[in-house]
Amino acid sequence: MAGEQQPPPKPELVLLDFSVSPYGQRCRIALAEKGLDYEYSEQNLLGAKSDLLLRSNPVHKRIPVLLHDGHPVCESLVILAYLDEAFPDAAPALLPSDPYARARARFWAAYTDKVYEAGTRLWKLKGDARAQARDEIVRVLGNLDAELGDKKFFGGDVFGLVDVALVPFVPWLPSYERYGELSVEETAPRLPAWARRCAERDSVAKSLHPPEKVDEFITLLKKVYGIERSAGVEDRTSR
Amino acid sequence: MAGEQQPPPKPELVLLDFSVSPYGQRCRIALAEKGLDYEYSEQNLLGAKSDLLLRSNPVHKRIPVLLHDGHPVCESLVILAYLDEAFPDAAPALLPSDPYARARARFWAAYTDKVYEAGTRLWKLKGDARAQARDEIVRVLGNLDAELGDKKFFGGDVFGLVDVALVPFVPWLPSYERYGELSVEETAPRLPAWARRCAERDSVAKSLHPPEKVDEFITLLKKVYGIERSAGVEDRTSR
Repeated sequence: MAGEQQPPPKPELVLLDFSVSPYGQRCRIALAEKGLDYEYSEQNLLGAKSDLLLRSNPVHKRIPVLLHDGHPVCESLVILAYLDEAFPDAAPALLPSDPYARARARFWAAYTDKVYEAGTRLWKLKGDARAQARDEIVRVLGNLDAELGDKKFFGGDVFGLVDVALVPFVPWLPSYERYGELSVEETAPRLPAWARRCAERDSVAKSLHPPEKVDEFITLLKKVYGIERSAGVEDRTSR
Repeated sequence: MAGEQQPPPKPELVLLDFSVSPYGQRCRIALAEKGLDYEYSEQNLLGAKSDLLLRSNPVHKRIPVLLHDGHPVCESLVILAYLDEAFPDAAPALLPSDPYARARARFWAAYTDKVYEAGTRLWKLKGDARAQARDEIVRVLGNLDAELGDKKFFGGDVFGLVDVALVPFVPWLPSYERYGELSVEETAPRLPAWARRCAERDSVAKSLHPPEKVDEFITLLKKVYGIERSAGVEDRTSR
């Protein structure tokens, strides 16, 4: 077989994930944007965790984890940065090239986590704690709306890191509106049109779940945790 | 003056900071490692915040903020990444070049924040909440010790991102030991020698405060916050 060229072996990518997880969805969206094939490995987060997950992420013991030729990369924003850097030819990059624009994107991508953190407190807690969570999520959504401004996407004309980080929380917003008695349309009037622009992308459309399914999942989590135990319970669905 | 070459204008770097802040110290260490000149602007965090700080970081309203030719970069880990990318000729880079090693460094750099978060709960809270914080910081220090292993620095032989992120918390450890009734030597037996190796660097030695000064600062913060108000009070010294 001299002269027969073997193609280089494809990198083996496995994503340990949980379908409803917005942090996992970030990774699925990024992998789809980059056209990278991967094996999806659904993890059981409400029962016993798999040996593979515990071995791959012994520190946090949570999804998402990207295994690249067996080497684990943990935490969604770390995974997104890794995909940009380990697969530079798999365009488009999620981060822009300008250092200042990159810093700005990193700042806001990290900030999007606050939507989920405050949102989780909204449905887990009651009374004053819930009222504080409501104030927080209103402030967070308002800041995100101001940062988006009249741009098409957070980075400008191109779908990028902040969009990938934030858009998986969109299907959670109707539940947050109900638990927090708030209106996203009033709080962040430019986010709904941005969310629709994102949803036009195959990468987003095929990764997100409908709001009804998210709401059912929140109801399930409330049962699993129990309302009275809610304050101190670790959120097992993130990052 | 034809033929007379003007040197390019030096970038103007201003660091809005607070001397005791470990998050600010991360930036000071990185700037010193890279040999970048900057103006240090001490901020009053216990009284009214300056217009400059509020304008530069309207979202979090906290230090550190790096102004580069007037453009603000906020959050210490974002600033560290920015320094690597905006000043690539100011060696050494804090992050290694290999994508997987970069992902690993980012994961652990973010993880170091948990030392301060759990430590703050140690001195702010009481009873069960303090006991939980104690368990948490013991786990966190143990994980960091395991990651360090027998390496000289977290990234290997070279002082890098995780070292810069973690070392400013070292002077807080004696206070955490006292409030948490724990021993760092027992919990994380390899960290003390690592801390001494870091402290041999000028960048670190000139940026950190002695543990006694940190302990005085904690005592001051306890008075400012008031013990009973401690549970819900925002920590105004970070990030």
